[in-house]
Amino acid sequence: MNINKQSVVAEYLPQQISPVKDSMDQAVFAPSNIALCKYWGKRDAELNLPINSSLSVSLAHLGSKTRLSVNESGGDEVWLNGQQVAADDKFASKVIDFIDLFRRGADHGIKVETENNIPTAAGLASSASGFAALTLAIDQFYALNLPTQVLSAFARMGSGSASRSLFEGFVEWQMGVREDGMDSFAFPLQAQWPDLRIGLIKVSTGPKAVDSRSGMNRTVDTAHLYQSWPLQAAADLEKLHQAITDNNFTLLGETAEQNALSMHATMIASWPPLLYWQPDSVAAMHAIWQLRASGTEVYFTMDAGPNLKLLFSAADEAAVKLQFPAMEVVCPFA
Amino acid sequence: MNINKQSVVAEYLPQQISPVKDSMDQAVFAPSNIALCKYWGKRDAELNLPINSSLSVSLAHLGSKTRLSVNESGGDEVWLNGQQVAADDKFASKVIDFIDLFRRGADHGIKVETENNIPTAAGLASSASGFAALTLAIDQFYALNLPTQVLSAFARMGSGSASRSLFEGFVEWQMGVREDGMDSFAFPLQAQWPDLRIGLIKVSTGPKAVDSRSGMNRTVDTAHLYQSWPLQAAADLEKLHQAITDNNFTLLGETAEQNALSMHATMIASWPPLLYWQPDSVAAMHAIWQLRASGTEVYFTMDAGPNLKLLFSAADEAAVKLQFPAMEVVCPFA
Repeated sequence: MNINKQSVVAEYLPQQISPVKDSMDQAVFAPSNIALCKYWGKRDAELNLPINSSLSVSLAHLGSKTRLSVNESGGDEVWLNGQQVAADDKFASKVIDFIDLFRRGADHGIKVETENNIPTAAGLASSASGFAALTLAIDQFYALNLPTQVLSAFARMGSGSASRSLFEGFVEWQMGVREDGMDSFAFPLQAQWPDLRIGLIKVSTGPKAVDSRSGMNRTVDTAHLYQSWPLQAAADLEKLHQAITDNNFTLLGETAEQNALSMHATMIASWPPLLYWQPDSVAAMHAIWQLRASGTEVYFTMDAGPNLKLLFSAADEAAVKLQFPAMEVVCPFA
Repeated sequence: MNINKQSVVAEYLPQQISPVKDSMDQAVFAPSNIALCKYWGKRDAELNLPINSSLSVSLAHLGSKTRLSVNESGGDEVWLNGQQVAADDKFASKVIDFIDLFRRGADHGIKVETENNIPTAAGLASSASGFAALTLAIDQFYALNLPTQVLSAFARMGSGSASRSLFEGFVEWQMGVREDGMDSFAFPLQAQWPDLRIGLIKVSTGPKAVDSRSGMNRTVDTAHLYQSWPLQAAADLEKLHQAITDNNFTLLGETAEQNALSMHATMIASWPPLLYWQPDSVAAMHAIWQLRASGTEVYFTMDAGPNLKLLFSAADEAAVKLQFPAMEVVCPFA
């Protein structure tokens, strides 16, 4: 059998699907997440199956809230932050395509309302929290009551890192080995770290970046150095487990920073070169290293964009804010 | 036998060494060189034996001119660009240590006069041309008449890339396999490329960088991604041979740029992170990619510092100068 999203989802659906009226008014929420060990490279592009396992921390109240309801007027409608989105918009069609994996031609229009409360200044992608919230909303809308592992695997098919956005705190996405990907899901780690702070800083943006899906493919296809990435990621995952178990912030920060820089290194070694950094990204890095050299323990991580996400402890918040006054601070465990 | 610089050099020296009076007044010249396939990582730190072969292009008239003479007043003197350098200066002691490999306690003081005509704005290291010129000067001073391959291997012990600075045009440094390193020398490639231009641009400098010797060691010791570097370098060397044989500028430029970025990628993936780039380095990269996207075929390479070296053809010189007015242009084959 040819494995694709449709066939994978169909295994978990009832013969007949229909919306459950009394669940319709409840919006569901999923947090953004920031990977400390990055997802970079796919072993299957259709199902978003990764080449390496990854580990993230969720951003508490920052994320996406989504509500599905039957659209009595017939067709589908997608609303984002209170504005209706045109049906031929890329975002709208991705959302409807995902819903169609479940609706499978059943005769009802759906109104999708999504609110992202991620601050514009944060420079965070909303696809992870967006697809996670959408998956939870679909489960509720059709009263599927699927296990969270299954929902995580489904969210992954919308956007890889969405698999991790179903949970709070530290979350691990195990890469899995199955062809249908149903063992490639995320689960929360039983750990609290109340002192941990994440600082979101946005640097000036430059020319439009290559989207992370294309960037990933280019790296895997053209960077010799990518061959060493899976090993790096596996080693970093072990270190992060150790850091979390021991509450060892130095190990957590060093591992996350080296992991992010190594991921960017694989992009930089690609052809054509893939450099998401802007001059201000590099200025911020040097400022962070300066800060660290002067005794403030702050680390950073970066995704496929020019912005930095800082990691520090509550005790150092004032010192870090002095250097980055515009930084937004998140308490992932508060 | 324990192999070290002393023992390796001794094999090639006469029992008694003494300066040849009539050669003393002649200064010798060695050019700077810019690697298109970089030397990054050592298999032997004492002898500067590399993990990979490399390929460079020499910078014509830009380089170092060195003259040795007997210092009648007794001790040693080192002069750089017309100024005497203190004996306990790091530069002076490296020069005298290198000379002592040959002098071996013979009873004469030496005056070393070196002139570098590398423009300050170029941001080029002078150790390659400096040790190449010093090696040539020693050969002349003691009338050793050693083959250039042996001189190249000796220059390499002073500074790895000095092995390539004994020659004009395209130069290959073969890594070699021998324990004493005497098959790790450079030789010129029989190729001319009169249209080739190299543009030297200097970006604003930041905090003092880590020297390339330490940077190399840190990369080899801490960067997982470095494991893929030797394979990358070997593949790039082949491509550069092809490009030179076919006079294929696109292949030459693409290979040199990806090679340099891959080398920097291995540094970026090190711990602590090794980022030689300043904000203005990244601004220049984006400007070059913009220029290329708009049809001007220009590429860049970078060494262990923040500056860029541009590669383009004579026909594009005006267009590149428009973007980088302060650039110094070198014609390696003119």
